[in-house]
Amino acid sequence: MTERIDHTLRGRWSPTTGTLPPHALKWLRQRTGLSDVRTPARTPDVPASALSGAAHAALDAVVGPGFVRVDRDSRLGRTGGLSYLDLLGQRGEGTPAVPDAVVLPATPEQVTDVLRTCAEHDVAVVPFGGGTSVVGGVAALRGDKAAVITLDLVRLDKLVSVDPVSRIAVLQAGLPAPQAERLLAPHGLTIGHVPQSYERATIGGFAATRSAGQASSGYGRFEDMVEGVRLATPVGEWRLGTAPASAAGPDLKQLVVGSEGALGVITEVSVRVRPRPRVERYEGFVVDGWERGSATVRALAQSHLPADVTRLSDVDETEVSLALAGGWKTAALKAYLRARGVAEPCLLILGWHGRSEDEIRRRRKETLRGLKLLSLGRALGEAWRHGRFNGPRQRDTLMELGVCVETLETATHWSRVSELRTAVRAALSDALGNCIVMCHISHAYETGASLYFTVLAARDADDPIGQWQVAKAAASEAITGTGTISHHHAVGTDHAPYLEAEIGGLGVAVLASVKRTLDPTGVLNPGKLLPTGLASPG
Amino acid sequence: MTERIDHTLRGRWSPTTGTLPPHALKWLRQRTGLSDVRTPARTPDVPASALSGAAHAALDAVVGPGFVRVDRDSRLGRTGGLSYLDLLGQRGEGTPAVPDAVVLPATPEQVTDVLRTCAEHDVAVVPFGGGTSVVGGVAALRGDKAAVITLDLVRLDKLVSVDPVSRIAVLQAGLPAPQAERLLAPHGLTIGHVPQSYERATIGGFAATRSAGQASSGYGRFEDMVEGVRLATPVGEWRLGTAPASAAGPDLKQLVVGSEGALGVITEVSVRVRPRPRVERYEGFVVDGWERGSATVRALAQSHLPADVTRLSDVDETEVSLALAGGWKTAALKAYLRARGVAEPCLLILGWHGRSEDEIRRRRKETLRGLKLLSLGRALGEAWRHGRFNGPRQRDTLMELGVCVETLETATHWSRVSELRTAVRAALSDALGNCIVMCHISHAYETGASLYFTVLAARDADDPIGQWQVAKAAASEAITGTGTISHHHAVGTDHAPYLEAEIGGLGVAVLASVKRTLDPTGVLNPGKLLPTGLASPG
Repeated sequence: MTERIDHTLRGRWSPTTGTLPPHALKWLRQRTGLSDVRTPARTPDVPASALSGAAHAALDAVVGPGFVRVDRDSRLGRTGGLSYLDLLGQRGEGTPAVPDAVVLPATPEQVTDVLRTCAEHDVAVVPFGGGTSVVGGVAALRGDKAAVITLDLVRLDKLVSVDPVSRIAVLQAGLPAPQAERLLAPHGLTIGHVPQSYERATIGGFAATRSAGQASSGYGRFEDMVEGVRLATPVGEWRLGTAPASAAGPDLKQLVVGSEGALGVITEVSVRVRPRPRVERYEGFVVDGWERGSATVRALAQSHLPADVTRLSDVDETEVSLALAGGWKTAALKAYLRARGVAEPCLLILGWHGRSEDEIRRRRKETLRGLKLLSLGRALGEAWRHGRFNGPRQRDTLMELGVCVETLETATHWSRVSELRTAVRAALSDALGNCIVMCHISHAYETGASLYFTVLAARDADDPIGQWQVAKAAASEAITGTGTISHHHAVGTDHAPYLEAEIGGLGVAVLASVKRTLDPTGVLNPGKLLPTGLASPG
Repeated sequence: MTERIDHTLRGRWSPTTGTLPPHALKWLRQRTGLSDVRTPARTPDVPASALSGAAHAALDAVVGPGFVRVDRDSRLGRTGGLSYLDLLGQRGEGTPAVPDAVVLPATPEQVTDVLRTCAEHDVAVVPFGGGTSVVGGVAALRGDKAAVITLDLVRLDKLVSVDPVSRIAVLQAGLPAPQAERLLAPHGLTIGHVPQSYERATIGGFAATRSAGQASSGYGRFEDMVEGVRLATPVGEWRLGTAPASAAGPDLKQLVVGSEGALGVITEVSVRVRPRPRVERYEGFVVDGWERGSATVRALAQSHLPADVTRLSDVDETEVSLALAGGWKTAALKAYLRARGVAEPCLLILGWHGRSEDEIRRRRKETLRGLKLLSLGRALGEAWRHGRFNGPRQRDTLMELGVCVETLETATHWSRVSELRTAVRAALSDALGNCIVMCHISHAYETGASLYFTVLAARDADDPIGQWQVAKAAASEAITGTGTISHHHAVGTDHAPYLEAEIGGLGVAVLASVKRTLDPTGVLNPGKLLPTGLASPG
């Protein structure tokens, strides 16, 4: 299987360019003051590799000849993730951190050996799965080390075992989600984890970042599905997970999940799986106004029978969806809503997965019991489903057009959801001026919900990086104290300065002590998760 | 509220004595070879307090005069928990560890100050809630310290706040569960956490031990309900929990939950609450044989709509239940089952909580869809519900009669549940000879289940302590490698030797490093959770 994958170039270096439909472009120009000057990408500089000959040879000895790459394409192909700033860097703006080498281990044992070797040779290690981090999680920072490698887990692509009775599959960390699903399909099983990064993201990345998928209402967050982990560290291998639940002390699995490569490298995950649904049904509804919409989503989340997919767009996001879609159907829909007296339409997508149409019909009936929702039918739900992974592709197009486009997210308890949404919107608008801020709830819990923001603005021609940094800082400040700094994007570099406000000085000290135990020389993913300086041996 | 509680004597020093019905006693004698010699309790020795005058004065200054108790009754009243060995100790057999003083702080701030004071004065601290640990969790061990106090949290008994929209209540750690429910009742809310220790156990104890309640299928384990925690440590206070879910690094809350007083003292818990059910329905069913029974419980746990209470007794536990009940109803039931061809009856209790009879009827129908169960009606379910907290009381009676009676529990994935049950039963029978071993599943998950064992044997007249220690060691060895050493009883002293086999050497090292950060001088609950010697500063 490994042979079929091109290890040289991950294909991440050729942003898809495209075009917006004329009506959407016109609307965008009206709303953001976007000019019609294109901003084509340039090729970034690639410095010479700083990996010493001795380190290179030692790594060669671990992974075998040909699996330590120092060529330009391999290194560029793992330069950063998919944040707006990453993409700017990859378009030749700013100075992205390029790894000195890319190392491709084939087994969990090799990963441990690579880490030990790197600790011996003063080389920092950045674990790399799908490279879809939008918070700087895979930036090739070397910290205080002599060099930095990107540890690409692409060759760890095996389905290790399946226990259909216990509904557990052991999957290697480098498996991209679609490939994991393909391997599980013959067993009639699915993970059911579909974040927007689904097409590229890996099992290990899901666990390392506490990922949440679009169907998290039904399938849970990824950490809810982790039954066990196998972690490689510079001091040896650590395995956890013997039971579905335990009171054998603190849940250390939850210390590994979300450790973002800073405490170790996840090499295998025991994942709770479920029978593949035979039927999926998606349906669009409209609710009048954000408050009514979020109250509806809350009622669903607090009921016994939430839908598997629950996603509420605010008025702005709903408007943008319709504007981008365009055409006679949109016009007809708007007229229909006006006629029904819906002043502030908020789109609600609900999705059910099940064994049969009959089962889904019963569940749908029970879920919707007592709720006042205006159904827009299945076509709208299916349209959302069809386009749900398109965000990243649309972003490439928008950046080409000179749009500053980025997302950020948080979560809080229900009583503060609207206050937090208002505060973040205000912070972004104040910082960016003429911009569009959209918001949706895509993950609802009994006690609260996530808020996911998408921002569109005309890019600052002189300082596009500074423009976004100011806006991001403003949003992060608005979040701090009311919500979590990240609901599912993780900490990376971008949120590290805000972690202490959330988990306290003792929280940071605890993480640092765990890091010193597992990574005594501090080679693992420097600058991620823990603020720089706190993670060094002390 | 505090004033109404007798802080001197917790009333734990007067084991209820009682009698068994004659038919039950006869049956027990047949099955275990029990003699008719009674074993009355003696009063244990209480050594002089080792608390120094300086430490006493410093603690007085923190909690106020009268709240540092060194009298005999106060100290004896917090000697150990409720394990069989604890109860033997309290009956004057063995040498139970008596605390040198009992300290009763009134606020979270006072708890932090007490810990700081104890660190300064070389005094070990054993946090104490309901005192219901059955694994040595509240044994007053001093480790290498000059003295040991029991920190009784009984005065931390406030409902701090309620957020009905987010369904979160902030509760102080010393609140016993029934009192917490009484405080929530006027808000129309419930925690829904009902372990067998319900009548005495506290909110802080639930969190510190990762408790699981009889209704965990519906309400979740206690750690699933913890939205936030406030932890006192000798180095200051640590607060966690800003959102229903987060990707801001590892979930440190799950490091505090299950920390058993060894990493800090939980003073407040933000608990997810739910509307109080207006209707509860319990129903007894019978399944023919353990394998069919556990497959049924698995199907329930893997369905969308499990019951709130799910409990399957094996053939032996079912037989004992019937034997203890006795009377014409039992005889009639046995005849009924024989007539239906049920060779190996296993009792299954299902319970539903809901807003209305109608809702429960719909849920029941959906839950039972496709299952082949023989209903024995609601009376049997209600009988179980009525007697479900009686275990501890029955135990006092049995010990008075000379019975060695203890419980232990584990959990594993579904594919190993039966193998594990067989292994533990064999280990106990081999160790104890003529004995009764009963087992039930009371907590079922998608990927596995708990196994709860109750053991009855005639006590060894010469060495009752050694008799149980041998049996417990045999059972723990049988569990290790297949299941978790504890599903909801926690680690305490009894399971500490088996923790490394479960979480690995690195797991123990990680916990020890966290302990060094939060408890640098090692005053917190010595000998619990971490094996002695590993938790000292290093």
